[in-house]
Amino acid sequence: MSATAGDREQRVLDIIETARAKRPRFRDERITLAHGAGGKATQTLIEGLLAPAFGLGELLDAAAVEGIAITSDSFVVKPLRFPGGSIGELAVNGTVNDLAMAGARPLAITVAMILEEGLVADVLRAEVDAIAAAADTAGVAVVGGDTKVVERGAADQMYLSTSGIGRVDPRGRLAPQRIQAGDQVLVSGPIGEHGTAIMLARNEFDLDAEIVSDTCSLWPVVDALLGVAGADLHCLRDATRGGVASVLNELARAAGATVVVSEADVPVTPIVQAAAELLGIDPMYVANEGKLVAFVAPQAADAALQAVRALPGCERAAVIGEVRREQPGMVLVETSFGGRRVMDQLVGDPLPRIC
Amino acid sequence: MSATAGDREQRVLDIIETARAKRPRFRDERITLAHGAGGKATQTLIEGLLAPAFGLGELLDAAAVEGIAITSDSFVVKPLRFPGGSIGELAVNGTVNDLAMAGARPLAITVAMILEEGLVADVLRAEVDAIAAAADTAGVAVVGGDTKVVERGAADQMYLSTSGIGRVDPRGRLAPQRIQAGDQVLVSGPIGEHGTAIMLARNEFDLDAEIVSDTCSLWPVVDALLGVAGADLHCLRDATRGGVASVLNELARAAGATVVVSEADVPVTPIVQAAAELLGIDPMYVANEGKLVAFVAPQAADAALQAVRALPGCERAAVIGEVRREQPGMVLVETSFGGRRVMDQLVGDPLPRIC
Repeated sequence: MSATAGDREQRVLDIIETARAKRPRFRDERITLAHGAGGKATQTLIEGLLAPAFGLGELLDAAAVEGIAITSDSFVVKPLRFPGGSIGELAVNGTVNDLAMAGARPLAITVAMILEEGLVADVLRAEVDAIAAAADTAGVAVVGGDTKVVERGAADQMYLSTSGIGRVDPRGRLAPQRIQAGDQVLVSGPIGEHGTAIMLARNEFDLDAEIVSDTCSLWPVVDALLGVAGADLHCLRDATRGGVASVLNELARAAGATVVVSEADVPVTPIVQAAAELLGIDPMYVANEGKLVAFVAPQAADAALQAVRALPGCERAAVIGEVRREQPGMVLVETSFGGRRVMDQLVGDPLPRIC
Repeated sequence: MSATAGDREQRVLDIIETARAKRPRFRDERITLAHGAGGKATQTLIEGLLAPAFGLGELLDAAAVEGIAITSDSFVVKPLRFPGGSIGELAVNGTVNDLAMAGARPLAITVAMILEEGLVADVLRAEVDAIAAAADTAGVAVVGGDTKVVERGAADQMYLSTSGIGRVDPRGRLAPQRIQAGDQVLVSGPIGEHGTAIMLARNEFDLDAEIVSDTCSLWPVVDALLGVAGADLHCLRDATRGGVASVLNELARAAGATVVVSEADVPVTPIVQAAAELLGIDPMYVANEGKLVAFVAPQAADAALQAVRALPGCERAAVIGEVRREQPGMVLVETSFGGRRVMDQLVGDPLPRIC
């Protein structure tokens, strides 16, 4: 890269960095699908409206109160069933995973349903069974719930909200603020499978291959990481809406760190890669429902990677990058060709109602 | 009453009792508004489908796990704002009250929102403020949340799901199974105000008087009852969807007891009475969002009543009935004229989307 090109890149980075240091203000007049996409608009809604109103520094997926982690999530995925899972399974695993990412062993969940009048009872039955089966697999009890019905046309079949509690595991001390220069960034397997499976289920492109959602409980992965890395495990996040790119951006900002990703090291299956190219999006922005990103101190990174790879389904776990100090709050990608680009926050919502 | 009339009444009671002893089966082919009304159809859905699938004896509003109570609820009230409150306030108080009814001091809540694309941002802003204010009043922290957006037409402006955790108060030992013959049934104030306020907000009848929803946190009432009655407080329930009648039916069934209500002792304001008559429904079936029903051992009932009446807004608390052994699982009303009738479960949904 010539000196001039390097200077220009530096100026661009500086401008972006200055813009990012400001707390975003929520000024939109109406809610758009982008506000639910997990990217820039969602962040503005959260940081500009919700967090200040609730007196929070940030709106976490799970928060700990007296050693108990609590979380809640809504699920509006379309279609209700897709290759590899369904809304009921997603609702259980999503909530279990939010607890796991807070370093908490999931104990119990509750399920609140919003049903559309006229919903076929067998559709509900199938999801109730899916919830029960997923809870059983994840080792959590379903301990309560709520059912509301709205008139025909006031919902799309069914929406689920699940909340969960877990006990914070004493081996961990997880927080974005613990991320520091030198930390290795690990992903627990190939990315983008859930989002791609949803797109295939919606027939958005004509692809011959099969792909299934990766929806699963991530507690076993967290358990293994805590066991091998303990306090050297600095931060965890599941890469759901907005994908790995959104998680990295969010954490880079929260930690005031730079994350540098080595593109060639990111595990992606050929089918996900092909689908993403057809859709014109980067697999890094495609949702996962059973993959986590872990920030691990360098001295523990090898052991952490081996421990994760030993788990079924995590054979392709990889270290995809590391934390540096250069441009606080930014995510940079080093391409296979030796170039470097900013991997910014998601703008708009290329894949609405993904979870 | 003649001997023949008495015999006939007894036969009717026996038939109803036999029908009720069976566990209901969920056989409906489609979901109807009645499944969300809190009455018979809701019970069939819960006892016939959800509870067996989740391996529960019953699906509780709140469940305790290791001394921590957890609850979750969805809110789909229409309109979003009504005299005396709004969906945001309702969502906080509803969740706080579910915890309080489990004898747990509310600690923290999370809020998951399902927003319709195109929602006016000021509508969201107002509800976020209402959530923050209600949480502040109730003394709970909002510690986390989630935001989903669905396309225009796939929701009705906004739905909220709140979950909460609380610490089970050691003074209490609350369970439907603790209800026993002789228990006095107390309500914490005039009934039916929330449902009536919603109906007025929908302009369903032309009434000159003003009525406001009773939405509020019931923890202060529970705190007072636990303080004065301790373990003599046997069971608590807030009388939301389906009103006091539904709560009494549910508890009579769960306890295998008869609840006999003295109609003349039930506190109802004239405006609620008038509105109920215009709608052709009994105020006992109209929703409350800030009234509880308490079952108290006879020796503690007077002190409990005085303690509740000393609280602001509870001056009209009353003992409205007692538990007997006659017809297990049934609720009977003694009318002002000396007659007796069965107060059965709610059938259908006279007031949809009340909360």
